[in-house]
Amino acid sequence: MTETVPRPTLEAVAARAGVSRATVSRVVNGADGVREPLAERVRRAVEELGYVPNQAARSLVTKRHDAIAVVVAEPETRVFADPFFARQLRGISKELTAHDNQLVLLLTEGRDDHARVARYLAGGHVDGALVFSLHLDDPLPELIQRAGVPTVFGGRPDWSGGKNGVVYVDSDNRGGARDAVRHLLGLGRSRVAHITGALDQTSAVDRLDGFRDVMVDADPRLVVEGDFTPAAGERAMRELLDRCPGLDAVFAANDLTAAGALRVLREHGRRVPDDVAVVGFDDMLPIAEQTDPPLTTVRQDIEEMGRLMARLLLRGLDRTADAPENVGGTPSSVILPTTLVRRASA
Amino acid sequence: MTETVPRPTLEAVAARAGVSRATVSRVVNGADGVREPLAERVRRAVEELGYVPNQAARSLVTKRHDAIAVVVAEPETRVFADPFFARQLRGISKELTAHDNQLVLLLTEGRDDHARVARYLAGGHVDGALVFSLHLDDPLPELIQRAGVPTVFGGRPDWSGGKNGVVYVDSDNRGGARDAVRHLLGLGRSRVAHITGALDQTSAVDRLDGFRDVMVDADPRLVVEGDFTPAAGERAMRELLDRCPGLDAVFAANDLTAAGALRVLREHGRRVPDDVAVVGFDDMLPIAEQTDPPLTTVRQDIEEMGRLMARLLLRGLDRTADAPENVGGTPSSVILPTTLVRRASA
Repeated sequence: MTETVPRPTLEAVAARAGVSRATVSRVVNGADGVREPLAERVRRAVEELGYVPNQAARSLVTKRHDAIAVVVAEPETRVFADPFFARQLRGISKELTAHDNQLVLLLTEGRDDHARVARYLAGGHVDGALVFSLHLDDPLPELIQRAGVPTVFGGRPDWSGGKNGVVYVDSDNRGGARDAVRHLLGLGRSRVAHITGALDQTSAVDRLDGFRDVMVDADPRLVVEGDFTPAAGERAMRELLDRCPGLDAVFAANDLTAAGALRVLREHGRRVPDDVAVVGFDDMLPIAEQTDPPLTTVRQDIEEMGRLMARLLLRGLDRTADAPENVGGTPSSVILPTTLVRRASA
Repeated sequence: MTETVPRPTLEAVAARAGVSRATVSRVVNGADGVREPLAERVRRAVEELGYVPNQAARSLVTKRHDAIAVVVAEPETRVFADPFFARQLRGISKELTAHDNQLVLLLTEGRDDHARVARYLAGGHVDGALVFSLHLDDPLPELIQRAGVPTVFGGRPDWSGGKNGVVYVDSDNRGGARDAVRHLLGLGRSRVAHITGALDQTSAVDRLDGFRDVMVDADPRLVVEGDFTPAAGERAMRELLDRCPGLDAVFAANDLTAAGALRVLREHGRRVPDDVAVVGFDDMLPIAEQTDPPLTTVRQDIEEMGRLMARLLLRGLDRTADAPENVGGTPSSVILPTTLVRRASA
C-alpha cells in the first residue's frame, strides 16, 4: 500500500476476472460456494492488480479484529483518579500486547453512556470485552449480553449466582476481610469499626460480610458506609469518632479509604496504632507505604487480576497458543487469594 | 431486539421480498441503484419481519460509527502516571459525549505497537482520530495518514511545516516560556537555568526556544535536558547545582519537572525563592499548589485543548450543529494563549 498509486478496487478485480463483485468478495474473504476455476480467475486478478481487501469488509466476514474492548463502569474521572484501575489496565495491556491484540478502552462520562458503549460493542469492532467495576442496577451486563460479545468480568457480578456461563476474576474479598479483622482482634483490640466500600458493588459487600463473619455481635454503629474514595474515608472516620469515641481499631474497605481515615485520626490527636489500629485493603503502592504511619493492609494482586481476565478471554476466543492443560473446556471463573501485609498501622 | 425471538436475517427479508441479498442490503443501507417498486417491496418485508440491520454491515456502507479514537503516543504506564493526559482526555471525553460519540482510547505498551494501532484505525472502527504526545521519528503520523482517517493532533507535529492539511491544537509554548524567563529577570535574577522537556517533542523544543529568545547569551551549561518527569527534574537539578552552583533561578519545562527540582533544592539547603526562584509550566493542579513552596507557573488550559481537538475533528466530520461561523471551510489549527500564574516559588 503506497500513497502515490490509488488502491485497486473490488470492482476492478471483478471486471478483470469477469465475475460479479459478490464472487470476488467471497473468494477474497475465504467463503465457500465459488467453483474452483472461477476462484482461480479471481485470485489471479487480485494478484495482477495488487488488490488489498478492505479491512472492514474482511473482518465483517472473518469476524476477527484482534482487538479487545475494556469497559470500566465508572466515569472517566474516577478511572484516572483511582490507581486501582490503572493497575488492572496494566495487567490487561501487557497480556493483550503479548498476543498482539489491541486494547480498546471505552471511556464514558457516566452510566447514561452505557447504552452507547453497548452499541459500540455490538457494532463488530472488537472480538470480546473485559468489564470491571460493575455496580448493582447497571444495565451494562444485560446490554453486553444482548450484544453477543464474549465477556470476562473483573469482580463477581451480582447476578452471577443465577446465570450460567458468566466468567469472572475476583479476589477472595470475604476471606481477606476476615484475616484483617482477626489480625486486629489478635492485637487485643475489641471495638473494631468498619468503613465499607460502595455497597452497590460485590467487593464491598463481600468485605463487609467478612467483617461480620468475625465480629458476629458487632455494635451496628461501628459500621459506616463509604465508597472507596479518600473523601469517604474522612467523612466516615469523623462519623465513627462521633458515634463511638472508644473505638480502638478500624478496618477500611480499601487503602484510599484508610488514608482518609488516618488523616482524620491524626487531626483528632489519636495515635496510630497505639490508640487506634488501622488496616486497609489492596496494598496499593506507593500509597500504602507513604501513609503516616505506613499501612497494614490486605494485599490483592490487582495487576494479575487484569492479566488473568485478558488470558481467560483470549483463551475462550482460542487466541492463545497455551499449553495442553487449557485444551477442552470453556474458561471458568477464578478467585485469587489475598495476603495480609504488616506495616506500622496495625 | 429481544432475547427470546431470534433476529430475522437479511436472507429472510430477501426471501420475503423476492429479491437478492444484495438488493436488500442496498435498500437497508440507503445506497442508490434500486428501482423504487423493488425498494418498496424490501421496505415492506423489513417492516413485516421486524428486521434490524447488522450494525457492522451498516457502518461498512454508511461509513459512520459515531466513535472517535484517541491515541496517546506514550506507553500506558505514562498515560496513567502523568496527569497531563488525564486532563486532556477529560476535555475530549466531555466534548465527544456531548455529541454522543464514543471515546475509543487505544492503549499501547510502546512504540512497537503503533503499527497495530494504525491497523485498528484503518479497520473501519472509528470515524476519526485524536492523536497526542507525538515524538520525533515516530512512524505513527505516516501510518495514520495512510490509514486515511481524519485526524486532529494535540501539539504541533514536527513535520507540520512541510505538509498541508495538518490540523492541530497547541499552546503558545514559546511565548509562555518567554514570559516565564522575563518574569525571573524581572525579579532581578541573572543566572537563569532551564530544565527542558523531552526534546524529541515540539512542546519541549518550543519552550527551549522561548528560553533562548530571552536569554540570548546564556551559558550553555545552564541548560540541562529532561523528559517532563519528576525523576528527570531531580537528576537535572543535581547536575545544574554541580555545574553552576551560583545559579539563582530555574525555569522547568513542566510542573512535574519543577516539583522534582524543588525537592533537590531543599535537599541542598537552597531556599526557594530567596536563593533560587523556580517557575514551572502547565499549572497542573493540585500539584502546582501542593509543592513546597507553591509553584509559580505558566498556565495552559489542557482540558480546553482536549475539548478543542474533539470539536475541530467533529466539525471536520460535519457532526456538530454549530453556529454559522463554522460553515464553509475545513478546520484550521489553533494556538491557545498561556498566562503566568504567580505563587510563592518565584
